[in-house]
Amino acid sequence: MDTTEELQDFIANGHKTFIPHVSMDNAIFGYHDHQLKILLSQYKAIEGYCLPGGYIKRTETLDQAAKRIVKERTGLDDLYLQQYKTFGDPGRIKWNEMDFEKFSEMAGVKHIKDSWLMDHTISIGYYAITDFSLVTPKSDLSSYCEWFNIDEVPPLLYDHDDMVKESLQALRQQLYYYPIAAKLLPEKFTLTEIHAVYETILGKKLDIRNFPKKLVFLGLIKKLNEKRNIGPHRAPYLYRFDMKKYNKALETGTTLT
Amino acid sequence: MDTTEELQDFIANGHKTFIPHVSMDNAIFGYHDHQLKILLSQYKAIEGYCLPGGYIKRTETLDQAAKRIVKERTGLDDLYLQQYKTFGDPGRIKWNEMDFEKFSEMAGVKHIKDSWLMDHTISIGYYAITDFSLVTPKSDLSSYCEWFNIDEVPPLLYDHDDMVKESLQALRQQLYYYPIAAKLLPEKFTLTEIHAVYETILGKKLDIRNFPKKLVFLGLIKKLNEKRNIGPHRAPYLYRFDMKKYNKALETGTTLT
Repeated sequence: MDTTEELQDFIANGHKTFIPHVSMDNAIFGYHDHQLKILLSQYKAIEGYCLPGGYIKRTETLDQAAKRIVKERTGLDDLYLQQYKTFGDPGRIKWNEMDFEKFSEMAGVKHIKDSWLMDHTISIGYYAITDFSLVTPKSDLSSYCEWFNIDEVPPLLYDHDDMVKESLQALRQQLYYYPIAAKLLPEKFTLTEIHAVYETILGKKLDIRNFPKKLVFLGLIKKLNEKRNIGPHRAPYLYRFDMKKYNKALETGTTLT
Repeated sequence: MDTTEELQDFIANGHKTFIPHVSMDNAIFGYHDHQLKILLSQYKAIEGYCLPGGYIKRTETLDQAAKRIVKERTGLDDLYLQQYKTFGDPGRIKWNEMDFEKFSEMAGVKHIKDSWLMDHTISIGYYAITDFSLVTPKSDLSSYCEWFNIDEVPPLLYDHDDMVKESLQALRQQLYYYPIAAKLLPEKFTLTEIHAVYETILGKKLDIRNFPKKLVFLGLIKKLNEKRNIGPHRAPYLYRFDMKKYNKALETGTTLT
C-alpha cells in the first residue's frame, strides 16, 4: 500500500483495529543542560501545531499504546512515561470546513465527516521525559515533528494548550515523589547537576542552600562518601537517588512518613 | 417507562446519548472519626461487588459526569472529587455465560452480547472523599450500594481491585498537596483532629510530634493564635489550612519551593 491507500484504509477500517471514540495525546518533554523542550507535531494538511498522538489498538494496554506512539516519534523506548489525565470536553476537537476539505483532498476520501474518526472522541494524556540530545524527532503518514523550547510553544490546536499546561503541572508535582529526575542524571551526581534539572523543570530559581535539605528531608537523595574532582580545590560530594525509599513511597503514597 | 423498558431502551439506544467504548468508575471514600470506608455496588443480576459507575453523556464534561454519578449514589454534590487514572487493559471486563443469561433475562433482551455495552470499553477513574456520616447510599436501576470498611473490601469484579488500589494510592499521595483533608475537618481544628484524618487515610501510625512539623514545613497548615477549651487545663492551639499556599502549590506544582 502506498501512503494514500494506507490513509484511506485507516479512515475506512481503523475502528476494527483501534478503539473508536478514544485517542491518546502525548506530551513528550526533553531536558538537556538547563533547557526544557516539548515535542510538537504539525499535520501536513492542517495549519497549526498539536501534541503528537494516535489511537489505541484493541489488543494493547494503554501503557503499551503510549510506549508505541512515543517510540514512533522519538525512536526511544526507555524514557520516563506516565499517564496523567484524560480529556473529554464536548466540542474539544473543532475542525473548520477548510481543514475538512484539505484533509479529504490529501486522503482522497469524500465522506470523512461520517467516518469513525470524526465522532465524539476523548483523549488519554501521557507525559514522557527524556534527554532531548538523544532524540531525532520522526514524522509519520500525515504529520511531522519538532522540538520547541517550553517558553516558545505557539497556541496549539484543539484542547492541546490545556494538555501542555496540565502535563507540565503533573510533571512538576510528580518530580518530588516519582523517580523522574533519575532518568536525566548519571547514577552519581553533584548537587549542582540535580539543582539544574529541578530548576529547569520547575521553571524557577531554587535556593541552592535549601534545595538539598528539601530533597534529603523528603528522603529522595542520599549523600555518598565520595567526591568528584572537577578542578584544583574543587571536589564536590556526590549524591544518588534512594530508589528503595522512592519505591516505598510509590507504594505507600508518600516519601513523607 | 417502567424499569425494564428503561433498561431495554438504554441497551438499544444508549450509545446515542452516551459516548460508546468509554465508561466511568468512581472510588467514593468516606471518612469519619478514625474510620475510612469505600462505597461498593452490587448488580442485582450478577454476583459480586464493584465500584459504582456509569457512562458519560455526549453533552457533558468528564468532571460533570463524575459529579452526576457520585451524586446519584451519595446525594451530595460538594464532595472532593478528582480524576486519577484511566483503565484500558484488553479483556478488563469478562462476563461469564451465566451472567449474560441472568442479565439478559432481567432486562428482557436477547442479543445483549451484540449491544454497544459489550464492545471494548475503557474506564475513567475518579475518586471522591466525604464524611460518610452524611451519606445514605442510593441504589439505581440495576444495582444497590453500601459502605465497606477499607480493610474489609471483598475481591471485586473486573479490574476493580486495581482501581481501589490505585485510587487509594492517588488519594494518599495527593493528601500532601491537594486540599483534600480540608473537606473533612472544621475550618479551625486541633492537631489531634488532623492527625486522626491523616493516620486514617494513610492507614498507618504517624508520630504525633513530627507530624505537625511536616505539615508546617510543607506550608499546608498554619498555627492560629487561638485555643479551644476542651476541659480543665486542656486548651490545645487551633490550626487552619493555608489555602493561599495550597492554591499556589496547585498552580506551580508543589508546596515545596
